[in-house]
Amino acid sequence: MITSRANPQVKYVRRLLTERRYRTAESAFIVEGTRWMRELAAAGVVPRALFATDAWLTSNEGRGLAARLGAAAVPVSDEVMAAMSDTETAPGVLAVLPIAPQPWPDAPALLLILDAVSNPGNLGTILRVASAAGADGVLLGPGCVDAYNPKVARGSMGALLRLPVRAANWDEIGEAVAGLDVWLAAARDGVAYAAVDWRRPAAILIGGEAHGAGAPAERLATGRVTIPMRDATESLNAALAAGIILFEAARQREND
Amino acid sequence: MITSRANPQVKYVRRLLTERRYRTAESAFIVEGTRWMRELAAAGVVPRALFATDAWLTSNEGRGLAARLGAAAVPVSDEVMAAMSDTETAPGVLAVLPIAPQPWPDAPALLLILDAVSNPGNLGTILRVASAAGADGVLLGPGCVDAYNPKVARGSMGALLRLPVRAANWDEIGEAVAGLDVWLAAARDGVAYAAVDWRRPAAILIGGEAHGAGAPAERLATGRVTIPMRDATESLNAALAAGIILFEAARQREND
Repeated sequence: MITSRANPQVKYVRRLLTERRYRTAESAFIVEGTRWMRELAAAGVVPRALFATDAWLTSNEGRGLAARLGAAAVPVSDEVMAAMSDTETAPGVLAVLPIAPQPWPDAPALLLILDAVSNPGNLGTILRVASAAGADGVLLGPGCVDAYNPKVARGSMGALLRLPVRAANWDEIGEAVAGLDVWLAAARDGVAYAAVDWRRPAAILIGGEAHGAGAPAERLATGRVTIPMRDATESLNAALAAGIILFEAARQREND
Repeated sequence: MITSRANPQVKYVRRLLTERRYRTAESAFIVEGTRWMRELAAAGVVPRALFATDAWLTSNEGRGLAARLGAAAVPVSDEVMAAMSDTETAPGVLAVLPIAPQPWPDAPALLLILDAVSNPGNLGTILRVASAAGADGVLLGPGCVDAYNPKVARGSMGALLRLPVRAANWDEIGEAVAGLDVWLAAARDGVAYAAVDWRRPAAILIGGEAHGAGAPAERLATGRVTIPMRDATESLNAALAAGIILFEAARQREND
């Protein structure tokens, strides 16, 4: 059992939590909690390393999951787990996962492109709803937080395992959307989102919390789409806007 | 200018921020930030008291807003504002508002009922999206956080000014939904949300983050509604579920 916070593995986990460059160099990231372990077991993803407290390892669900995960769990003291964890109340289990993005689709029919979504909780929620709505992939434009940031991973739940997600510059985004309608979500003056024909292959472009979409996003867009507000609400947050538009696209495609 | 944190007004604001019972007794709550002040000015709501830093009062927008708000701003030092504020970075302006809920509608056609939504950020987002989608009112069932909690107020933006919001027990909720279809949002095994006829007067019942809806909510429901997931996602958070279902209801009613 690891009982010292000075153990090199504690430092390794801390660096993966806090340093994007280190995550990239190691091609690894951290996920925590029973629910994420369930996602890993269901997806057959084998952690590179697994750390757990005695309490978790001897819990009913922990015991079963530890057996299914295919990686030997290293027991750690509660104190070490607290030092390793990115959360205020450490959930008792933590895995080091390989960064192994899903392959980018050859002919995507529904993409989500994010411009400067810098809040990790928001990005996590957006990845989760994009996956739930059946988007074929998500491109993270300049100014977006890293998809493997621990708070993004936490919010996204298993979406990072299922959904092709790529960081990209505007040139790369331009190539990725060739042949697609590109709808920029705008707070006003766009086509009502339910009046768009979403059965056509399309990309939806959503700007970040602070300033909305920037000039490169505006240039890329072939149209503007708006969620009509029934009152004086100025705008919805990026996750809600993404969810409402993506699920409308899914609804239209299923009714087709 | 108030420069001492020992000033009784600082203590008054702190109690309104932190004590639900004190808010009820005083029938007052706190909102902060330029964007909220814009909402107040637009709605013609006059604060009971207004506190601002010199930096805010001499800013371009602050000067204009202070003149429009109809309450004399009490200047406070940056240190006092930091002590008064509920946020990590105090936005420089803070208002004491009367609790004056919108009248409950006589014949509501679209209600949202929340069961044990305890996270204040989530509740704020839900109120905002309910207002934006044109819900006629929101009932906060047992276990919900107070609508006038400062974090709820922050997330809701102006929705608390526009939308009838009531805390209620299950008996009161039962009376409020008489004559309405009551759709319980469930992670699985319900009618697909887009297949429901939302042109009928309806209430949507959504459970909290931790445990979903409880037994009283189940008893009240006349049907279960599900957002179909296109992948292995277990469920969406309460705000996304509310937003997607409410905007589908709004879409159907507009197309009617």
